[in-house]
Amino acid sequence: MPISFHDRPTFPRGFRCASRNVGLKPAAKDLTLFASDVEAAAAAVFTRNHFPGAPVILGRETMKAGRLRGIVANSKVSNVATGEKGVENARRMARAAGAELRTTEDRILVSSTGVIGVPLPIDKIERGIRGITADLQDDPLVGAEGIMTTDTYAKALSASVGDSTITWVAKGSGMIEPNMATMLAYIFTDAAIDSAALDRLLRDAVDVSFNMLSVDSDTSTSDTCAILANGLAGTVDEAVFRETLIAGCIRMTEMLARDGEGAQHLVRAVVRGAFTEADARRVAKSLINSPLVKTMVHGADPNVGRLLMAVGKCFECDIRSSSTDAWINGYAVVKNGERLEFDDATVRKTLEAEVVEIVVSLGMGSAEATAYGCDLTKGYIDENAAYYSS
Amino acid sequence: MPISFHDRPTFPRGFRCASRNVGLKPAAKDLTLFASDVEAAAAAVFTRNHFPGAPVILGRETMKAGRLRGIVANSKVSNVATGEKGVENARRMARAAGAELRTTEDRILVSSTGVIGVPLPIDKIERGIRGITADLQDDPLVGAEGIMTTDTYAKALSASVGDSTITWVAKGSGMIEPNMATMLAYIFTDAAIDSAALDRLLRDAVDVSFNMLSVDSDTSTSDTCAILANGLAGTVDEAVFRETLIAGCIRMTEMLARDGEGAQHLVRAVVRGAFTEADARRVAKSLINSPLVKTMVHGADPNVGRLLMAVGKCFECDIRSSSTDAWINGYAVVKNGERLEFDDATVRKTLEAEVVEIVVSLGMGSAEATAYGCDLTKGYIDENAAYYSS
Repeated sequence: MPISFHDRPTFPRGFRCASRNVGLKPAAKDLTLFASDVEAAAAAVFTRNHFPGAPVILGRETMKAGRLRGIVANSKVSNVATGEKGVENARRMARAAGAELRTTEDRILVSSTGVIGVPLPIDKIERGIRGITADLQDDPLVGAEGIMTTDTYAKALSASVGDSTITWVAKGSGMIEPNMATMLAYIFTDAAIDSAALDRLLRDAVDVSFNMLSVDSDTSTSDTCAILANGLAGTVDEAVFRETLIAGCIRMTEMLARDGEGAQHLVRAVVRGAFTEADARRVAKSLINSPLVKTMVHGADPNVGRLLMAVGKCFECDIRSSSTDAWINGYAVVKNGERLEFDDATVRKTLEAEVVEIVVSLGMGSAEATAYGCDLTKGYIDENAAYYSS
Repeated sequence: MPISFHDRPTFPRGFRCASRNVGLKPAAKDLTLFASDVEAAAAAVFTRNHFPGAPVILGRETMKAGRLRGIVANSKVSNVATGEKGVENARRMARAAGAELRTTEDRILVSSTGVIGVPLPIDKIERGIRGITADLQDDPLVGAEGIMTTDTYAKALSASVGDSTITWVAKGSGMIEPNMATMLAYIFTDAAIDSAALDRLLRDAVDVSFNMLSVDSDTSTSDTCAILANGLAGTVDEAVFRETLIAGCIRMTEMLARDGEGAQHLVRAVVRGAFTEADARRVAKSLINSPLVKTMVHGADPNVGRLLMAVGKCFECDIRSSSTDAWINGYAVVKNGERLEFDDATVRKTLEAEVVEIVVSLGMGSAEATAYGCDLTKGYIDENAAYYSS
C-alpha cells in the first residue's frame, strides 16, 4: 500500500515547537524546542561512534525511563569532545528547557549539532530558552529550521495512520553515514504505543532507512533518532503504523541524501539476489560510497565499469563475476559480469536524471537491500574545506 | 639505517625498457615493455577485487612458474569486464611481446590500465609491439611514462644494496586503495634471490606500503605489483635487501599518494598505542579515507574534531575516548579525547605544509601502523566526472 504524505506537514495532536536565534549563529535560528502537552512514551537510537557527543552520553541516560515531554536542540556547536564540562552543559540545557515546560530535566532529550570540540555557549542558550514556550506553534517546519546546519531547506513530513498522525523532522547534510541512527531525526505521533513497542518499531524502521544512508561515509558523533508517542489519538493498527513509519523514514532518508552537502542527485543503490542480507547491505553501501561512482553520476559519465569495481571490492561478500547484472534507471548496462554494448548518449541521458537508481543483481541468493546517497561535487569540497573557519 | 635513493633512477644490470604510442591515446605513450636480458625469478601480488581484469586472471596463471623475461603494459584501456575474449586478448599481448624477446608467452606478465569494460584494441597493440626491442633503453622513466593514466609525472626510484640495485616503477592516481598490491608497481633487481624468497619479501613490503595507501578508497580491478630478480649481481645480504625493498615501497607509496588525482598534499596517518595491529591499520585507513579529514587538510581548516570522528567511527576497534591523543605535524590538538585549546592560526599554518602528518595515540596497547593518502580537491572531481568521456 503506497503511503500518502500530507501536502504540508502538520503535528500530531498535542505536539508543538518553537525556534529562535539565541546568538550562536549571526542571525539564523539556532535553537529549537519540541514539546508534547502531555508526557509521551519515547524511544531513541544514537550514534555508534566511539566519541559520542555530550548530548548523546546524557541522552542514553535520559532514554532509560522511556518518557519524554520535549526535545531541545541547538545548531552551530555540537558539544562533542568537550569532556565532563560538556555533559554538565548538556544537563543545564535540559534543565532550562524542563523549567519552561514545568517538568524535570530527565524528561527532556538534548541534541547539539555543528562544529566538534568547541565549548557550548551555555549562558547564551539558557538565556535564549527563557520564555520560549510563548513561541510554541503548530508548524513542524519551524522546528526543522532551528536545527539546520548546511541543509539547504528545512525538512519535515507527516502522514496519517487511522485517526493518528506521524510527523518526521530531521536535518542531515554532511558527516552522514549514520550507524544506529542519523544526525537528528525526530518522529512525533499521537498514537498510543508503549516505549518497548516504540523501541522495536523504531529500530526496524531505522535499519532500512537512516542506517542505509550515506552522504560521505563519515559517521557523526551526534547522530540521534528519537520517536515520541503521546497517545492523544488512542490506539492504532500496529501493522499500518509500522508500514507508515518505515515509509516515512525512507522518504526522509531520501530527502537527506538528495540534500547532502553539494549534492545534485539522489542516488539509490538496490542490490538483489545476494546470498545474505549482510552482503546485500554491504554491496549497496559500497556503491553509494564509492567516490568514482559518485563522480560518474555527477558528470553523467557513462563509465559503468565503476559499478563492477565498487561491487567487486566487497572482499568478504559472496560475489560471482559471471552472475552479476546491473541496470541504471532500468537500462541494462552489465550482464554476467561483462559490460554490455550500449549507446553512450542514452546512458548519459539517464544519468542526468535527478534520481539515479542503480540496480545490481548478484545472482547468488534472494536477499536484497537498498542504500541511499548522492553525487560528489565541488560544492561538497567548498563546504568542507572551510567549515570550521566560516 | 636511512636508505639513500639514487638522484636519478637507473636500472639494475640486464634490465631495460621501451615505450611507444601505439594509437590507444591520441599522441602520448600508451605501451611499455620491460625486459630482462636473462630469465628472472619473479613474484607478484594482484588485486583482491572480485572482478579482476583479464591481465590479472592471466597473470595469476603466469606467475605460478615464478619466472619472467618481461612485462608488457598498456594504458588507456584496462581490459576488465571483457569476458573470455578479454583473456584471449591478454594472451595475444603476451605472445606478441614474447616473440619480440624470443621467449614464450608464459614468461611475460601483462598489465592493462584505463577505462573498465571497453574491448582491448589488440590489433593496434600487436602492431605496436612489433620491433619494439630496437627501442629498449636504460632509463626506467621511459617505461614509467608509458603506463601513466592520470598521473601528473612518471614515477621511478632506485637504490643500491651492496653490489646490486633495486628499481621501482609505478603508476597510481585514482581508483587507489590497493588490497594485496597497487595499481601497477614493478620492481626490478639484479640481486640473486629465488622466487619463493621474493614472494615472501614482496608480501612483507607491500603490506606496510602499497596496502596502506588510499587515494579514494576505491579498489581497482587491475592492481598488480611484481618483482623480478635476474641474479646478474649475485647474492646479497637479505636483511639489507629487505630493508631497502620496504623503504623503496614506502617511498613509492608516498609518491603515489602525493600524486593522487587532484591532490595537493601528502597525508600520512600514524596510529600508535593500538591494542592490535589490525586496529592500528583500520584507524589509520579511516583517517586517510575520511572525506571530512581530507577536505580539512585541503582547506587548511583547523577543524580537528574531525580526527576524533574518523577514529571513533571504527566501531569494531578497541578505542577509549579518555586515552586518545592527537597531533598534527607534531602540534598537540587532542588530549584524552578532548580538543585542546590552541591557536587556530598555528594549526592552519601547519595544515598548509605539503606533507601533513596526523599522529593518533590510542593508549590501548603497543601496536602501530601508518597509512598514506592525500587531500580531496575539486581536481579529483574534474578528473572523475568525465574520465570515460574525455
